[in-house]
Amino acid sequence: MTIANNKATGVKICYIGGGSRGWAWNFMSDLAVQEAISGTVALYDIDKEAAEINMKIGNRISAMPETKSKWNYEAVHEISKAITGADFIIISILPGDFKEMASDVHTPEKYGIYQSVGDTAGPGGLFRALRTIPMYVEIAENIKKHAPDAWVINYTNPMALSIATLYEIFPEIKAFGCCHEVFGTQRLFAKVAEEIHGFENVKREDIKINVLGINHFTWINQASYNGVDLLASYDNYIAKHDVTSRKLTEQNFDSFFVDHNFVKFDLYKRFGIAAAAGDRHLSEFVSWYLTDKDSCKKWGFALTPVEWRIKNREELIKKSRLYATGEIPIDINPSGEEGVLQITALLGLGDFISNVNMPNKGQMSGIDEDVIVETNAVFSKNKAQPIIAGKLPDAVNILTLRHTNVQQLVLKAGLKGDKDLAFWALTQDPLCSKLSLDEARTLFNEMYENTKSYLPF
Amino acid sequence: MTIANNKATGVKICYIGGGSRGWAWNFMSDLAVQEAISGTVALYDIDKEAAEINMKIGNRISAMPETKSKWNYEAVHEISKAITGADFIIISILPGDFKEMASDVHTPEKYGIYQSVGDTAGPGGLFRALRTIPMYVEIAENIKKHAPDAWVINYTNPMALSIATLYEIFPEIKAFGCCHEVFGTQRLFAKVAEEIHGFENVKREDIKINVLGINHFTWINQASYNGVDLLASYDNYIAKHDVTSRKLTEQNFDSFFVDHNFVKFDLYKRFGIAAAAGDRHLSEFVSWYLTDKDSCKKWGFALTPVEWRIKNREELIKKSRLYATGEIPIDINPSGEEGVLQITALLGLGDFISNVNMPNKGQMSGIDEDVIVETNAVFSKNKAQPIIAGKLPDAVNILTLRHTNVQQLVLKAGLKGDKDLAFWALTQDPLCSKLSLDEARTLFNEMYENTKSYLPF
Amino acid sequence: MTIANNKATGVKICYIGGGSRGWAWNFMSDLAVQEAISGTVALYDIDKEAAEINMKIGNRISAMPETKSKWNYEAVHEISKAITGADFIIISILPGDFKEMASDVHTPEKYGIYQSVGDTAGPGGLFRALRTIPMYVEIAENIKKHAPDAWVINYTNPMALSIATLYEIFPEIKAFGCCHEVFGTQRLFAKVAEEIHGFENVKREDIKINVLGINHFTWINQASYNGVDLLASYDNYIAKHDVTSRKLTEQNFDSFFVDHNFVKFDLYKRFGIAAAAGDRHLSEFVSWYLTDKDSCKKWGFALTPVEWRIKNREELIKKSRLYATGEIPIDINPSGEEGVLQITALLGLGDFISNVNMPNKGQMSGIDEDVIVETNAVFSKNKAQPIIAGKLPDAVNILTLRHTNVQQLVLKAGLKGDKDLAFWALTQDPLCSKLSLDEARTLFNEMYENTKSYLPF
Amino acid sequence: MTIANNKATGVKICYIGGGSRGWAWNFMSDLAVQEAISGTVALYDIDKEAAEINMKIGNRISAMPETKSKWNYEAVHEISKAITGADFIIISILPGDFKEMASDVHTPEKYGIYQSVGDTAGPGGLFRALRTIPMYVEIAENIKKHAPDAWVINYTNPMALSIATLYEIFPEIKAFGCCHEVFGTQRLFAKVAEEIHGFENVKREDIKINVLGINHFTWINQASYNGVDLLASYDNYIAKHDVTSRKLTEQNFDSFFVDHNFVKFDLYKRFGIAAAAGDRHLSEFVSWYLTDKDSCKKWGFALTPVEWRIKNREELIKKSRLYATGEIPIDINPSGEEGVLQITALLGLGDFISNVNMPNKGQMSGIDEDVIVETNAVFSKNKAQPIIAGKLPDAVNILTLRHTNVQQLVLKAGLKGDKDLAFWALTQDPLCSKLSLDEARTLFNEMYENTKSYLPF
Repeated sequence: MTIANNKATGVKICYIGGGSRGWAWNFMSDLAVQEAISGTVALYDIDKEAAEINMKIGNRISAMPETKSKWNYEAVHEISKAITGADFIIISILPGDFKEMASDVHTPEKYGIYQSVGDTAGPGGLFRALRTIPMYVEIAENIKKHAPDAWVINYTNPMALSIATLYEIFPEIKAFGCCHEVFGTQRLFAKVAEEIHGFENVKREDIKINVLGINHFTWINQASYNGVDLLASYDNYIAKHDVTSRKLTEQNFDSFFVDHNFVKFDLYKRFGIAAAAGDRHLSEFVSWYLTDKDSCKKWGFALTPVEWRIKNREELIKKSRLYATGEIPIDINPSGEEGVLQITALLGLGDFISNVNMPNKGQMSGIDEDVIVETNAVFSKNKAQPIIAGKLPDAVNILTLRHTNVQQLVLKAGLKGDKDLAFWALTQDPLCSKLSLDEARTLFNEMYENTKSYLPF
Repeated sequence: MTIANNKATGVKICYIGGGSRGWAWNFMSDLAVQEAISGTVALYDIDKEAAEINMKIGNRISAMPETKSKWNYEAVHEISKAITGADFIIISILPGDFKEMASDVHTPEKYGIYQSVGDTAGPGGLFRALRTIPMYVEIAENIKKHAPDAWVINYTNPMALSIATLYEIFPEIKAFGCCHEVFGTQRLFAKVAEEIHGFENVKREDIKINVLGINHFTWINQASYNGVDLLASYDNYIAKHDVTSRKLTEQNFDSFFVDHNFVKFDLYKRFGIAAAAGDRHLSEFVSWYLTDKDSCKKWGFALTPVEWRIKNREELIKKSRLYATGEIPIDINPSGEEGVLQITALLGLGDFISNVNMPNKGQMSGIDEDVIVETNAVFSKNKAQPIIAGKLPDAVNILTLRHTNVQQLVLKAGLKGDKDLAFWALTQDPLCSKLSLDEARTLFNEMYENTKSYLPF
Repeated sequence: MTIANNKATGVKICYIGGGSRGWAWNFMSDLAVQEAISGTVALYDIDKEAAEINMKIGNRISAMPETKSKWNYEAVHEISKAITGADFIIISILPGDFKEMASDVHTPEKYGIYQSVGDTAGPGGLFRALRTIPMYVEIAENIKKHAPDAWVINYTNPMALSIATLYEIFPEIKAFGCCHEVFGTQRLFAKVAEEIHGFENVKREDIKINVLGINHFTWINQASYNGVDLLASYDNYIAKHDVTSRKLTEQNFDSFFVDHNFVKFDLYKRFGIAAAAGDRHLSEFVSWYLTDKDSCKKWGFALTPVEWRIKNREELIKKSRLYATGEIPIDINPSGEEGVLQITALLGLGDFISNVNMPNKGQMSGIDEDVIVETNAVFSKNKAQPIIAGKLPDAVNILTLRHTNVQQLVLKAGLKGDKDLAFWALTQDPLCSKLSLDEARTLFNEMYENTKSYLPF
Repeated sequence: MTIANNKATGVKICYIGGGSRGWAWNFMSDLAVQEAISGTVALYDIDKEAAEINMKIGNRISAMPETKSKWNYEAVHEISKAITGADFIIISILPGDFKEMASDVHTPEKYGIYQSVGDTAGPGGLFRALRTIPMYVEIAENIKKHAPDAWVINYTNPMALSIATLYEIFPEIKAFGCCHEVFGTQRLFAKVAEEIHGFENVKREDIKINVLGINHFTWINQASYNGVDLLASYDNYIAKHDVTSRKLTEQNFDSFFVDHNFVKFDLYKRFGIAAAAGDRHLSEFVSWYLTDKDSCKKWGFALTPVEWRIKNREELIKKSRLYATGEIPIDINPSGEEGVLQITALLGLGDFISNVNMPNKGQMSGIDEDVIVETNAVFSKNKAQPIIAGKLPDAVNILTLRHTNVQQLVLKAGLKGDKDLAFWALTQDPLCSKLSLDEARTLFNEMYENTKSYLPF
């Protein structure tokens, strides 16, 4: 890799989960429009065919005339080979298949526990983590052995425990986790700037925020635009847009990813601080918005059925083949993700501040050292340095500690293969607090049976 | 005060709550039989008459021929005077009256929350703490001003937050909290030594234990007698005595303080460590033993109605008058409490190890610094030094953190007068986890109205 | 104060030490060229006349046609008045007078201890701190009372203990300390970029660095320009410029502030990390460069005699009068200091990264919490947030701990008025390690006598 | 191993360094008089002959009629075999030979650095540590593999870094270090009790003390006998016995181990706390008592030449042969060491409080976590639990930090084989503060050459 004239050439990227549809395509698109860097991308995936198809898609993109930066894509079917020599490693995998995800999301429903996503908190998030940890142990060992100096960018959920496992196995790893949920809240504040203050064409990147919390239960205690404090006028905005009192009609639920911000508004009214993730994620961290099958409707969001994901995947597979053969054209537009910007900054070609998930070294007070927290960080030449973000309000902090304590138990359970510890972790999850100990045990056992081929015990 | 010939004379003790019946009488009795120390006891109580009566009782005890150590008792009606010059300060007060205690214990029952004691955890413990904190602020300020070098021994519940308030207001205070609950578990292990190992006449003091946890949710991870490990044979003992499967009959509930150890047995079977408090206390820390009005019966313990306490007090008041006038004789026997032993040790007249509640300086791992924890301590000349006790098993630790986190919020709420924070603390108590947010708010408001004259907000 | 259209109007600044010549004039000049902000500046100084003169100078600047931003300057002779309502408070004072500074710098020379500056480490820095602490206690109490929300920017040395005192007295204070020493090292790396890599017109602001350490003993472990790593080529630069082997001639010492970077070069060769302060400061933290009166010459720097400062002041006083009356013109140019940029950023009008001195909340590993450390921070709307900077190499860290431990002792000695503790601190300063305990005592007593009217004991 | 009737039989002890003369013989003698325990002792030594001889001596002791407890001694020449199955492991080795010790003690003399012992601090202690660390790495790995549940009692110096290495390699190890230096100070306070207070026949074990510090720089901030405070009268005792002003005559130096307590007295006068090690050790931690070859005489202690140790060893070897053959009789008397008492307590046969060296888990404030500190601990059934001992006075703490910081560097240097780091550690040792950097380098290199066959770099 060489840096000269504000450009880096010969950059080597390894993409674990490189057969992914969606995430990988966005990444290829972002690489294509970033002129400052070029090189090769090794695509690794346990679904070899998917990696091969993405190789073709990637190289087709590189061949397009409007592509500003040419990359050479290769499908590499051995993880050690794919990793060796990498400057950057992207990880974006599905831990298990949709059969397991169906267990995560829908098995708890029999016990009255409803989850909108089921990938971070709740019984679904917990079992997903237990499947993820052994996979990340293996990835971390490979990185330690084959590319100890590489920067590692994680997109897999559960975010916190993916990152935690990497650092547990290889403490010197240069890894962080990216999540775009906060961007949505920046967009919301852009609307505050426009609607309340009369600014025009406000870009989400120009909303300056201070981020703190844990992934998907993240908060903003400072938001401004051109020096104008936006949190001070959030109340006004909420007053205009909060329609929880009115009945939502069916057309308000046009997709399984709908989000009317009512959970965010409610949390702000309760705690005086802005929650900064989608309502579908936020609602899984407390027990108030998912009390029964329909409570989510009152709060303006939907439960995403795994069935939908299965169907969606089928369509994406078809699409991928058409992309690969050139039967349908590929659009290259910035995706709104920041991975490529981060890579560029880490090469020293443009400093940059954004939110990341990293072990707590003091960036958050009130949360134990080394727990994975989400705050802003400065990206610069070979550095990703979290910013001291302060402390959550006490009432929000205790809700957060509930989850970080569960996460620490799940991490230990996953690393040691301690089934009993995993069970006790589940009993402490807020969504599970409605279960008796016997019900909790039955749910745990059922989810265990459904997914045991991926579990560490 | 003078120390010579293995005796301390002229010792000054101040007893805050000195009108108490029961605790104060036990203390007088223990003083009477301890030959090594003598001096004066200032009895302070907001119930002046009770203090006057106890003064008479105390001086009657001193006049008895069998009394080995003569003390001069005075009722002092001003706290500053009572405290000034004290070498030792005993605190044993009732924060509020039985009307407030009735609110603590019985108001939550309307919401399906049952508490056997209601003085430490649960909504009852929380409101009791909120009443206690302002009183302890005042006591701590008095000690700081009038007797900064005195040793302070607390018996009031909630233990942890009483002690925490003292240290918060006057960090240099020499205070600790005593609780006899652990002794009961030592007695249980004495039976293990006798029944399983064939030892005879085993005294509870000779059961060597390692104590760790928080008050009333305390644990023992090492127990031995004459070098024989008793925890290893606890399983056998439990197998013989655990009759939860059999139906308990009414005569198994002959008092409101009944305890068949079934909660302790169950906790041991779940976690492999011995819980070390009465079942009535332990059951309030988790949600499994108090699921409805009758679940306690299955577990062999009773709910103590405040009505009983009211009646009991009436009888004690009568008794106190008869003691004072000499109409009925006073027995002086060691009470089994260790306060007088601790005083003797602090004077340098006999080292001594026992469990105490003090701020965590490392005696417990896994719990934040300065949180009040219960471990063994060594008492010696002018020192009460906790022993490094180690860490609870992870699954027990997360249950404990749930409570220490709530306690830290209650402490802050009490010190700052922050009503909202107190509410959020309540929502995180395990016994309250069955409540919706609206129900929690209604319960909170009702308990607030019932007790507001004592509350800091 | 109002923010609109990317401008802040009605900003209130209080300048403590506002009669200063040099620092204050630079500040006025920087304000004059910053279009985004305007308002009033209250000048407070114990030298009332100096404040009055600076008021005239300030208002003359505001009246100049080329001034882009008009400020209203007032001399306010009561500190409480000057502070009340301030949005920003600048502190830049001389703790004591040149008589005391002469004692700091020159009394130790009798004992074989030579100091080039004598304001941070060494016996001079220690006594200067002991004079500063009581002054900063008073300032902190005033800020707590009259302007608790103001941002406080400190320029006074000793930097670390000035800031530490502010936080000790008023923990919620929003204070940080600025020091331009690091900028000099950025300039050095700009030359590396030019000489070794062939870049042209490199600006010091564009040298990206990671800063960590304590004030005046600060280090850079990452330096780059346009993505090119400059530390990797520092060796080459040093090889070309390091002339310690050659004899320096008299003309190499044309001023008392001369700095040939030879100390920095030597430290780099020893520790593999770039020291980031002037050689005159760096040399006072270890015992190797100031072994006798002439050792500094070998290392290319001079000892600054206080006599020079006295003469210089006389000239500046004359100049100030001519400025005030308009007899000589005033140049307004950016000074290279960053105070005004920081103010602008704190108003939300342009984010900005620069090095600051603040209590350690995790930005530096290896140094105790709350010790004042120097690292980069992000300045944004109402936030100055340190960046997690990592850890110094072990060998540098132990040298640093030597000083932070001494500083903590001096802080305590100053706050408690503990003369004996101050003496023990002095014995642990590396420059004093050549003294026997008796010599140390004599030196301490002599410096004490010289300056005792300012000391807290 | 079986415990019954207050006795433990079949106890397995492994003695690493089991060929030692003196320490091993004392240990055998202590075992012989302790009725409560019996079993086998495996003697391992790199000097196989010495182990064989000690086996014979041990078995001869067991055969003596007055021996109360019979032990079976075996010389085992493979460390893995010697350790396997051990309940207790004693370590008491000489790291290197007297040739290396001569380098430790006498090479620095050429540079004006005098050491009375040279085994803990100073350049001698540092190099001895660097030889010890690799040996302890090997021992720790053996214990981890072959006897992870054994209790490990260390007597080797340097104590702190021996223990630190064990925990670094095997964090779950149950190890502590014993040192009898504190006992000498208890004896001194026994004299205070007798001379000042008129008590008779005071036993050192009955002097109750609170111990805190690091090995050989240990302190007592509480000392009492029968409730009488002895620190309060230490002043009087010192006034009577402190003859530093008078000239000591030659007969005051009748041995190389002479100790008149003058260093202890001087430290008490300076810091108001009682140092609790022999003057020969204490003096090596500060620079004031060993300023030149003769300064020790003024302070009443001697430098111990290694030549004496060599001669002494020859005599001991002769003696060992005579013991082994039975040509001279063996006295069995309690040695005053506490190892056997600790073993008995760890078997649950008698609780016991004594000072130990263990990683800091909170027993000392003001010193970093996990640094090896010396405080009291409670020994009981399978537990050695340090007591929270508090904090040293600030001025003593900074002197202590100087050493713990050096030790941490030496530990790292030893574990990583980092020669440069070892050199920087040496420059920070107080005894070396008189050296220029060049002199320090020369000394370091000379000591390196003398001992390099044992060094990890």
